[in-house]
Amino acid sequence: MNSENFTLSEKIVLPSYIRQGSQARRSHEQLIRLLLEQGKCPEEGWSESTIELFLNELAVMDSNNFLGNCGVGEREGRVASSLVARRHYRLIHGIGRSGDIAAIQPKAAGSSLLNKLTNSVVLDILKIAGVRSVASCFVVPMATGMSLTLCFLTLRHRRPKARYIIWPRIDQKSCFKSMITAGFEPVVVENALEGDELRTDLEAVERKIEELGAENILCVHSTTSCFAPRVPDRIEELAAMCAKYNIPHIVNNAYGVQSSKCMHLIQQGARVGRIDAFVQSLDKNFMVPVGGAIIAGFDEPFVQEISKMYPGRASASPSLDVLITLLTLGAKGYKKLLSERKELYSFLAQELKSLASAHKERLLHTPHNPISLAMSLDCLQAESDKAVTQLGSMLFTRQVSGARVVPLGNEQTISGHTFRGFMSHSESYPWPYLNAASAVGITREDVALCIKRLDRCLKTLKKEQNGAESITRELIFNPAPCLCMSDVCLSLFTLSPLLSRLSH
Amino acid sequence: MNSENFTLSEKIVLPSYIRQGSQARRSHEQLIRLLLEQGKCPEEGWSESTIELFLNELAVMDSNNFLGNCGVGEREGRVASSLVARRHYRLIHGIGRSGDIAAIQPKAAGSSLLNKLTNSVVLDILKIAGVRSVASCFVVPMATGMSLTLCFLTLRHRRPKARYIIWPRIDQKSCFKSMITAGFEPVVVENALEGDELRTDLEAVERKIEELGAENILCVHSTTSCFAPRVPDRIEELAAMCAKYNIPHIVNNAYGVQSSKCMHLIQQGARVGRIDAFVQSLDKNFMVPVGGAIIAGFDEPFVQEISKMYPGRASASPSLDVLITLLTLGAKGYKKLLSERKELYSFLAQELKSLASAHKERLLHTPHNPISLAMSLDCLQAESDKAVTQLGSMLFTRQVSGARVVPLGNEQTISGHTFRGFMSHSESYPWPYLNAASAVGITREDVALCIKRLDRCLKTLKKEQNGAESITRELIFNPAPCLCMSDVCLSLFTLSPLLSRLSH
Amino acid sequence: MNSENFTLSEKIVLPSYIRQGSQARRSHEQLIRLLLEQGKCPEEGWSESTIELFLNELAVMDSNNFLGNCGVGEREGRVASSLVARRHYRLIHGIGRSGDIAAIQPKAAGSSLLNKLTNSVVLDILKIAGVRSVASCFVVPMATGMSLTLCFLTLRHRRPKARYIIWPRIDQKSCFKSMITAGFEPVVVENALEGDELRTDLEAVERKIEELGAENILCVHSTTSCFAPRVPDRIEELAAMCAKYNIPHIVNNAYGVQSSKCMHLIQQGARVGRIDAFVQSLDKNFMVPVGGAIIAGFDEPFVQEISKMYPGRASASPSLDVLITLLTLGAKGYKKLLSERKELYSFLAQELKSLASAHKERLLHTPHNPISLAMSLDCLQAESDKAVTQLGSMLFTRQVSGARVVPLGNEQTISGHTFRGFMSHSESYPWPYLNAASAVGITREDVALCIKRLDRCLKTLKKEQNGAESITRELIFNPAPCLCMSDVCLSLFTLSPLLSRLSH
Amino acid sequence: MNSENFTLSEKIVLPSYIRQGSQARRSHEQLIRLLLEQGKCPEEGWSESTIELFLNELAVMDSNNFLGNCGVGEREGRVASSLVARRHYRLIHGIGRSGDIAAIQPKAAGSSLLNKLTNSVVLDILKIAGVRSVASCFVVPMATGMSLTLCFLTLRHRRPKARYIIWPRIDQKSCFKSMITAGFEPVVVENALEGDELRTDLEAVERKIEELGAENILCVHSTTSCFAPRVPDRIEELAAMCAKYNIPHIVNNAYGVQSSKCMHLIQQGARVGRIDAFVQSLDKNFMVPVGGAIIAGFDEPFVQEISKMYPGRASASPSLDVLITLLTLGAKGYKKLLSERKELYSFLAQELKSLASAHKERLLHTPHNPISLAMSLDCLQAESDKAVTQLGSMLFTRQVSGARVVPLGNEQTISGHTFRGFMSHSESYPWPYLNAASAVGITREDVALCIKRLDRCLKTLKKEQNGAESITRELIFNPAPCLCMSDVCLSLFTLSPLLSRLSH
Repeated sequence: MNSENFTLSEKIVLPSYIRQGSQARRSHEQLIRLLLEQGKCPEEGWSESTIELFLNELAVMDSNNFLGNCGVGEREGRVASSLVARRHYRLIHGIGRSGDIAAIQPKAAGSSLLNKLTNSVVLDILKIAGVRSVASCFVVPMATGMSLTLCFLTLRHRRPKARYIIWPRIDQKSCFKSMITAGFEPVVVENALEGDELRTDLEAVERKIEELGAENILCVHSTTSCFAPRVPDRIEELAAMCAKYNIPHIVNNAYGVQSSKCMHLIQQGARVGRIDAFVQSLDKNFMVPVGGAIIAGFDEPFVQEISKMYPGRASASPSLDVLITLLTLGAKGYKKLLSERKELYSFLAQELKSLASAHKERLLHTPHNPISLAMSLDCLQAESDKAVTQLGSMLFTRQVSGARVVPLGNEQTISGHTFRGFMSHSESYPWPYLNAASAVGITREDVALCIKRLDRCLKTLKKEQNGAESITRELIFNPAPCLCMSDVCLSLFTLSPLLSRLSH
Repeated sequence: MNSENFTLSEKIVLPSYIRQGSQARRSHEQLIRLLLEQGKCPEEGWSESTIELFLNELAVMDSNNFLGNCGVGEREGRVASSLVARRHYRLIHGIGRSGDIAAIQPKAAGSSLLNKLTNSVVLDILKIAGVRSVASCFVVPMATGMSLTLCFLTLRHRRPKARYIIWPRIDQKSCFKSMITAGFEPVVVENALEGDELRTDLEAVERKIEELGAENILCVHSTTSCFAPRVPDRIEELAAMCAKYNIPHIVNNAYGVQSSKCMHLIQQGARVGRIDAFVQSLDKNFMVPVGGAIIAGFDEPFVQEISKMYPGRASASPSLDVLITLLTLGAKGYKKLLSERKELYSFLAQELKSLASAHKERLLHTPHNPISLAMSLDCLQAESDKAVTQLGSMLFTRQVSGARVVPLGNEQTISGHTFRGFMSHSESYPWPYLNAASAVGITREDVALCIKRLDRCLKTLKKEQNGAESITRELIFNPAPCLCMSDVCLSLFTLSPLLSRLSH
Repeated sequence: MNSENFTLSEKIVLPSYIRQGSQARRSHEQLIRLLLEQGKCPEEGWSESTIELFLNELAVMDSNNFLGNCGVGEREGRVASSLVARRHYRLIHGIGRSGDIAAIQPKAAGSSLLNKLTNSVVLDILKIAGVRSVASCFVVPMATGMSLTLCFLTLRHRRPKARYIIWPRIDQKSCFKSMITAGFEPVVVENALEGDELRTDLEAVERKIEELGAENILCVHSTTSCFAPRVPDRIEELAAMCAKYNIPHIVNNAYGVQSSKCMHLIQQGARVGRIDAFVQSLDKNFMVPVGGAIIAGFDEPFVQEISKMYPGRASASPSLDVLITLLTLGAKGYKKLLSERKELYSFLAQELKSLASAHKERLLHTPHNPISLAMSLDCLQAESDKAVTQLGSMLFTRQVSGARVVPLGNEQTISGHTFRGFMSHSESYPWPYLNAASAVGITREDVALCIKRLDRCLKTLKKEQNGAESITRELIFNPAPCLCMSDVCLSLFTLSPLLSRLSH
Repeated sequence: MNSENFTLSEKIVLPSYIRQGSQARRSHEQLIRLLLEQGKCPEEGWSESTIELFLNELAVMDSNNFLGNCGVGEREGRVASSLVARRHYRLIHGIGRSGDIAAIQPKAAGSSLLNKLTNSVVLDILKIAGVRSVASCFVVPMATGMSLTLCFLTLRHRRPKARYIIWPRIDQKSCFKSMITAGFEPVVVENALEGDELRTDLEAVERKIEELGAENILCVHSTTSCFAPRVPDRIEELAAMCAKYNIPHIVNNAYGVQSSKCMHLIQQGARVGRIDAFVQSLDKNFMVPVGGAIIAGFDEPFVQEISKMYPGRASASPSLDVLITLLTLGAKGYKKLLSERKELYSFLAQELKSLASAHKERLLHTPHNPISLAMSLDCLQAESDKAVTQLGSMLFTRQVSGARVVPLGNEQTISGHTFRGFMSHSESYPWPYLNAASAVGITREDVALCIKRLDRCLKTLKKEQNGAESITRELIFNPAPCLCMSDVCLSLFTLSPLLSRLSH
């Protein structure tokens, strides 16, 4: 309420009480002031009431909520369902204009503020998370893959002749498709096996550059966060190489914001070499619903160029989600989540190690991967060639999600390119294994339950090797087509061999 | 509750009452059954309670809501803010998988159902709205422009040699950019002036095809819904031409679902010729927040190809919005909205006509445009060359949104292409004019208020021609950079000439 | 946001857009200003966004929402569940203080404002609805019965010697109990049969007064709204009588606010005689959840005395509901509801009349009852003595709610007092009948459906008279214990006679 | 969804995924089953999604949500505002029937279940909290005071001759008024000073009983939870005395559920003597909004008699709040809250003790009071006779709520009875003091902040004794009428003496 209304209220309720109420209101306003002034994520999280007050304030600034508005355009922010209006806090106009997803909208001052502030708060968080020299970023309502596509499409205008993208192999389908969709030819560079780890083969990358000619290469497309035993690419060296050959460099930092190591790689890469843009998922890093990404870079004009490449306006929903989330957590809360994640990574590693040794397997040694771990399934495989895939299915039906088994010898063809050893980031990784990750928001209970159930599954599988009926029965009853519930899984598991064996 | 729980309830509350309650539950279940069985928009709209019951049911089927789930993956649908969880009905996993935006997710049976049902219900509505032979469609969480880009990117794989897109001019920036972003060269075909209308110059299109060679042309990119005095493209003839030359045909049907005429054009085009896909905005046709589109076509495999081109999963938010909205309205409610829109189009036309004649202007004769109308601003222009832009600014400050003024002589360069007469879809439209549209959800009050305020503005402007101070003062106080609040406006209105005049 | 924050926003988003947003905010503030200034129900209803903005503003003024508050008291408005906090808009402190339910709370300026404004808005609505000279009122979170009790308890302190309450009979259990609970002895005055109507027997009332002695009578407790064929008491004459004998007069106006006739009776009664307080239900008059009432009167000190009689603070929930509702509807919306109700009363009467004549029954002639109607069930009764109760049960299972059947010969003992002919307000009403009412919020569809289903039930019952099995079977399957679903029904319908007959 | 709908879903989404979803649903159903079966507070709290699922299930069982219902009664659960409907989860019919607040409603099976389950869960919690032999209880939508009144009104019917209520003094206005409102004469028994504590003067109570005659006494009305230095009444001895003299005994256990000591007193009282009913606040014990209470007892028929005394139905809002809260917390969560409260009581005591000694005051020795503490303000008083009240005002403006100062010599007349030394529970308590309490939900931060601010206030006050201007100025600017923000405060603090002194 404005001061006039507070004064009127003093005639109804005792002035001293109203005055205290109005002071209380000022403390909310003060938080909003700091946000507007500094454009940073507040150190302390806001209460739900401050957040909702703020969102309501933004909403009343949009023309669809003007009490006296009359609309005769083709897009007036009208909403047919009040359920829908409410869930969007009546912010209906989305973000951006036809020219630019970061542009402000005349009809929607509130949504425009939301958009600007979100980008600004997110930029602050990227700095806090470790990329201190990031210059600009924006939230885009598309997941990581499509956001990478947008980066590639933008680069096309700078490098009209280029046809190839150099890509150190990572077996994640949408990464590969992001290049195909943009119309480029991915040049897959196999990883080098170093101990248990799969790492960037820098020499192979350089060979490819020289072979194809720098001017024919749109960019190098590297990756930080990934499933063990692959580890983050050698971003520093790649960035230096890109600088040397004058080739753009796009980093897929999908869920790397949550890891100080991944962020450090990017920071260092930009310092010593060239990184044009790095892309990260909103949902994987900030615990919001799927569907948004952050495109960030060290050169503001290039980031703007990307934002201007998005034709038309876009959903404000991912921006709203991440803004609410970061205001709720505060910088402090987000940092706390990150440090908890780190601790639970150690806990998970330790628990997996114990479990592995109990089952005569081992935790693969992948010290460069700060998020994902892998435990060999060598013995399991030795007992039966189906046991590895059975394990995946069993975990699925036991509500262990995200624990992905990687058997040997998968083969997968995507858009004409055949990947041997698919899912393992390598044509011939020596062991089958199981992945588990410590991602932001994981709890100690998640780890404990997972280890417990995994243990039981492994025991059951061993017992069953003589008489496989009961597992088979489970598979028949639950013909889980997907063994891993992970993004990278493409193969539908068919039961037919098992079934036919059973019928004999 | 399941039958066991109903039975237990009978021990607490009288059995006959509980039985009636359980029967009442069945009537909700029955509605859900019909939806699942038929995949169609229900004829009668659902109550909010049925909708929320249904969404809650979907949510409990997603793994992030499993009571016993433990997650050790990199993406587990965790949500940090309960405000965010609630506004998404706890449906966090988005839609699609890395391979395909239409794919089902093992971790999210509920979200997958939501996605499938939404696409199915939307398909039904497209049929009801007039494109009876549409074969397949899907909702994509991107606005129209980016969705068109996705179509073009898909076609690239079918026509790797093609570089050009034939495009009958429409001055809407994101349409043009959708082609640029996809990496193609738009071939702008100027419209032909027929009476007051601007229509497709079919001969010019055919000339271009022959000039460039069909194999070098990615597609024809035509438009239905547009601002008067431009009218929908001659879709039938274009479709026939595309069939003849074996060129794909993508139709931008941005807000055309709301018009039976636009839908009829598409239906006929597909019947007599070739339409590969047609794209429509969710927000403009279904009164939901900005950020979603429907990509539809007559050949299911091609539509699937587009959906597979989207790399990675995507936000479920637009799908959720349109599903809630259509279940709320029912087919009946949506048809009612469409018929009201049609009636109000006539009302608006009539009111504008009266107003025009009162101010010695005229309503342009654009019978082929079923949504947008234009009133000449000839006399206004005659009085002062600034008056037209002033009118735009005045309407903005008076909360008339969507009424867009189009002065003569605008020039705009987008991505290297210069459009003379920008905003008017023509290099030399003879008159300045003002647009108003009757779009879905418009009310009689919108029209009445708009006419009243427009009348006052026009009167004020005439009075002020001798001493322009007061308007200028308004402009200084409200230096509205955008005169039209419309997507097509690109030019920032600068006050400098006015200000400098004022200082003399 | 305050002006400082708007100024800061102008650095982020174009000043002219922000200014328009801030003006839009002022239009909400303006509505709030009018409410605070005048304390009246706004003529036009508010939008949901204005209402929620206002409630949020109130909430931030309560100490439980102070950002820097520390609480070391025994009641600090803490909330354990965020679901609970949200559904109360974080207004947790309730209303009133230990001294007075209308008192303001130091800890809760916002809740105090809410309370004062609600009472003020409700007072305005009572005037609009017809009691123009009402002086004061307050909302109390108790239903009508307990609110009447509170009035009686207050009167006790004024008339310590009085033991009796004179009460023209109305067969509504909570009315009777309200007197018992307060510790008084109800003196039941039977109604006089005039035509079909049951009306106040004024002579009998006066006889009782003289017989018992005015000083021994706490008050006369009269009733307006009631089920036909009883009609509202002769309030004017009773009020005059109370004035003459100097006896307080409390009017039970349970659902009378919705009827201009009932309100007129009270207005007239107060003008010509004595009415100390009149009590009305919130839910029955204002379409809010059950649980609140308005206690109103013509003498402000007496109304305050009642409010001070309520020991301790109380739930704000009913106040919040009615305030939200009246702000949503506006005076205009509420008046519209009332006039629709009136129209549908005529429609219901006409439909019932046709139906009655089709079944050889008749619509009882009760012109003084403006809400409830009664249709005789004479012929039905003639066919079988169980048919009348069977009809009630059938309507229940067919989801016709509120249509209450009144058989002859019910007898009911409440707190030691035996009512012969219970439910019919008379010891010997000549006919069994069925009630239907046109209450606020009723729709044309309600009436149509009710008539249709009633018609079918009556037809079925007639057919079944020869072989009663099928109905009996229904009763066995649905042993609805209550035939009427109405407050007045006390008797549990037992199936045993029917069942035993069936087994023969 | 029912099994039919799950089967249909399997045609849309892979059967194994749907099956897992349907199993997930069953785990929610299972929780609901346990609740229905056992009627106990679940050990582990439920997730919000289970709670909302359950409430939605209840709502669909109420007739106002029947899809095919037609209503022609006077109360059909219609809701005008969707904001209101939503905040009540569409449970509109309230609880109880005209006959009995605990009765089930034919029109509202869901609301009836809600009511029954709430009472059952609350009973379980009372047992867990220490009154193991409690037989029955019900939630009533009235605060403690009015609930006590209802108990007294019920007793009246059992003891028609009784006029007096014996009441060991506690200076809480609504306690006193609860007896006045019920129409009885409170017989105030002064407390005995034992050390610093004020305790029940058992001899004085017995003297009064004999003086007035047991048959003339309605009941003894004792109190557990109270502000130090008063301590809980000697419930055991009073209960024994009541048994001996055959006098009913009603215990005001306002915020005693949170203290195992208070609950133990009641349990013991009932074991060795007579307790007819004990009444507790919902908001003070369960962190829900103000406005509900629990009436409980050891004799089921008597508790039912009270519930039948409530005339008419009532708001379900407090029941809904407490049910949501207890399901959210689970028994485990509630017990955790209680043990935290206990710990923080010790922390508060220790901090207050240190603070007191720093300011030459002392923490009063009140070991029998498990919730409230008192610190002497002797020195402060010595410095200036206004300092004590000034301290109260200063704390108010510094957002320390609930810290109540008690000066000497207050006098207050309530309903004709004059209390000397009001607020201190004694006619002549020797010292002024300040109260602070450790109530359920208090945090360590509350305590720390309170101590810090209190320390500053005390320092400021001492400094200011020479030149009192600045404080006076504060008081003028903030003429806080209430020094304590507590229920017991009745006196309006007038500034006039200070002001007049200032003007000299």
